[in-house]
Amino acid sequence: MDYRFADTMKHFQSSAVREILKLTQGKSVISFAGGLPAEELFPAAAIREAFNRIFEQGNSALQYGLTEGFLPLREALCARMARKNMRVTPRDMLVTTGSQQAIDLLAKVYLDPGDTVLVQEPTYLAALQVFQSHGAKVISVAGDPNGMDPEQLEAKIAEHRPKMVYVSPTFSNPTGYVWSLERRQALLDSCRRNNVLILEDDPYGELQYGSDETYPSIFSLDQHPESSAVVYTSTFSKIAAPGLRTGWVIGDPTIIRSMAQAKQAADLQSSTMDQQALYYLLRDFDLDGHIALIRANYEERMRLMVSLLEGLGRSDLRWNEPKGGMFLWLELPETLHAEHLLPLAVEKGVAFVPGSSFYAERPKHNTIRLNFTHSDRETMITGMERFAAALEEISVRV
Amino acid sequence: MDYRFADTMKHFQSSAVREILKLTQGKSVISFAGGLPAEELFPAAAIREAFNRIFEQGNSALQYGLTEGFLPLREALCARMARKNMRVTPRDMLVTTGSQQAIDLLAKVYLDPGDTVLVQEPTYLAALQVFQSHGAKVISVAGDPNGMDPEQLEAKIAEHRPKMVYVSPTFSNPTGYVWSLERRQALLDSCRRNNVLILEDDPYGELQYGSDETYPSIFSLDQHPESSAVVYTSTFSKIAAPGLRTGWVIGDPTIIRSMAQAKQAADLQSSTMDQQALYYLLRDFDLDGHIALIRANYEERMRLMVSLLEGLGRSDLRWNEPKGGMFLWLELPETLHAEHLLPLAVEKGVAFVPGSSFYAERPKHNTIRLNFTHSDRETMITGMERFAAALEEISVRV
Repeated sequence: MDYRFADTMKHFQSSAVREILKLTQGKSVISFAGGLPAEELFPAAAIREAFNRIFEQGNSALQYGLTEGFLPLREALCARMARKNMRVTPRDMLVTTGSQQAIDLLAKVYLDPGDTVLVQEPTYLAALQVFQSHGAKVISVAGDPNGMDPEQLEAKIAEHRPKMVYVSPTFSNPTGYVWSLERRQALLDSCRRNNVLILEDDPYGELQYGSDETYPSIFSLDQHPESSAVVYTSTFSKIAAPGLRTGWVIGDPTIIRSMAQAKQAADLQSSTMDQQALYYLLRDFDLDGHIALIRANYEERMRLMVSLLEGLGRSDLRWNEPKGGMFLWLELPETLHAEHLLPLAVEKGVAFVPGSSFYAERPKHNTIRLNFTHSDRETMITGMERFAAALEEISVRV
Repeated sequence: MDYRFADTMKHFQSSAVREILKLTQGKSVISFAGGLPAEELFPAAAIREAFNRIFEQGNSALQYGLTEGFLPLREALCARMARKNMRVTPRDMLVTTGSQQAIDLLAKVYLDPGDTVLVQEPTYLAALQVFQSHGAKVISVAGDPNGMDPEQLEAKIAEHRPKMVYVSPTFSNPTGYVWSLERRQALLDSCRRNNVLILEDDPYGELQYGSDETYPSIFSLDQHPESSAVVYTSTFSKIAAPGLRTGWVIGDPTIIRSMAQAKQAADLQSSTMDQQALYYLLRDFDLDGHIALIRANYEERMRLMVSLLEGLGRSDLRWNEPKGGMFLWLELPETLHAEHLLPLAVEKGVAFVPGSSFYAERPKHNTIRLNFTHSDRETMITGMERFAAALEEISVRV
């Protein structure tokens, strides 16, 4: 057979993270690469209880369910959303197999090949993969730690006439940056004026460290519930457990209905078991108390990583102290390529993701994404020692 | 906002089954419409035990897993496949969110808009939706209860140069037909000769009634494991429980790798919980004994439906006595439209799917798909009485 794959497959980039995992296979490598939450913090006992509740409901709990998602779960999520000034009903919501599926379904119903999507620079790798897999043209908009530059956004909208802007304004992947209220409002105003749909991806919003400042979602700033400019997605992966593979997406009911049709063709529905378990978890477990615990723990890990970076005593490195999320963004001297540092680091027993993976255009090769949520104290200390050794070695070579 | 949906959304048909469910909402309607397995036969106690095993493994069971699927589950499935002469290794297999996702992922990696797919006439509705959603042209090949007509297949391949043929040769949805060995071999030969990929969808293969005859999969007939002309998919939905949303797909590793890349963008991975539960179910539970029990029970239901149809004493109806699967295919007199019968039937308290939904071209409006697996004895008797009354009424009117 001479297989004849679709043209769109040529747009697929292999995930840098997966390639790194291959490099590390069979070796004892400490990983700052993945975006994994800390296993030891999963509320396993409560999740087990939640599954027990399911089996008490009888066999119908194991039957096919609605494509739109388990109704009691959607109702409970609507109540959670309302606390953040996102006022929606179950018909404005679709339960998805992680928020990744929400990105894919919206791309499917909204993008034709050749359509343009604007993204932050840098941005979430697997979102880039989705847009490319649908044949879309992806254009970057530069910004700073406060968010996208509003003038450049206007200019790129005028130049490229995009159908959609994809943003992750709260503790974003890979940088950990959080947008100011002004930048959120500016994006919303621009997009409304130009009829550009906003996809707001918010997997990390609950993982806030330090201040009590609140960061309203762009969805909540939009006062047009029936013709919303924003489609908003979030997930249980970071606040409960990723193995339950459950996210949700809210937006105008025409868009949600269309995404539900696409989901019907894609997989009929997400796991009935996981959806029901999460409903009982929301009902019977103090998820907010649990989130407070995760926050405190992750903040400690983040501060440790920052202090270890400081301890390197290198004035040629720059990094942020993230106000939330799972990642720290590190800039090496411009002469150093993170891709060249990586094999050296893996040799010494530590892995990270070169920042270049997160750019749709013009990658900055001297950047690195470091995950701080998956390593305990001792592992992080050892990992950073190895990282420092690799950095010393490559600095001498250059 | 003036939403600008993708052109492909225009190809989406709303599912007839869903429209019927809307009709029946809030009413006490007996449904022969859905393709639901019998809840009372789900091995709930064994599934509960399987979930308990997961929680004994510790928290890592709740972490992100491989896109390709939980390795021990793939290994166990390979062993099951080998019993049916399908010799594959885990790298030839991808675990999916039901076999529906396997169809969608293969369409995604293999079909460009405008490409042609050949299908049986009639065929699985949600597969038609997938192909249409990817902008493919879908062409029907006629056949008879023994399978696709080989001459017409050759002619349509010559005329339309398809990239793919989609078939469900064993107890197919909607007809319940099973292909002869000769027809299976003829399809394989034609497709190999013409470099056309076969997607073999086998959700019902284990649900065999009556005879001990074996129906080898087309995949097993193909003696080229490294350059297979066949991609084969099946599911746990009909032999364990659909709420676990787990299927699998096997094929040449280049194709499987490509589908795994597409899955990474689509949803990263399927539910870790469900995959692990099914692994423990395969390991600790007598699934084959359970399948034997389902078979016996469903065969009884099928024979009851057949005898009730016979009891109507109408010489103008034709139906098959399926050798397996979940459906019976009924033909009304050509003057009667099943779409016109449906609202009348729903009024009397019974629902079914008009057969026209299952045609890519030239629908036969006098056909009906009846599900016999979801109704118990009493329900089926009452449902068939109502069906008969609706049929009487419309026959008088015509």
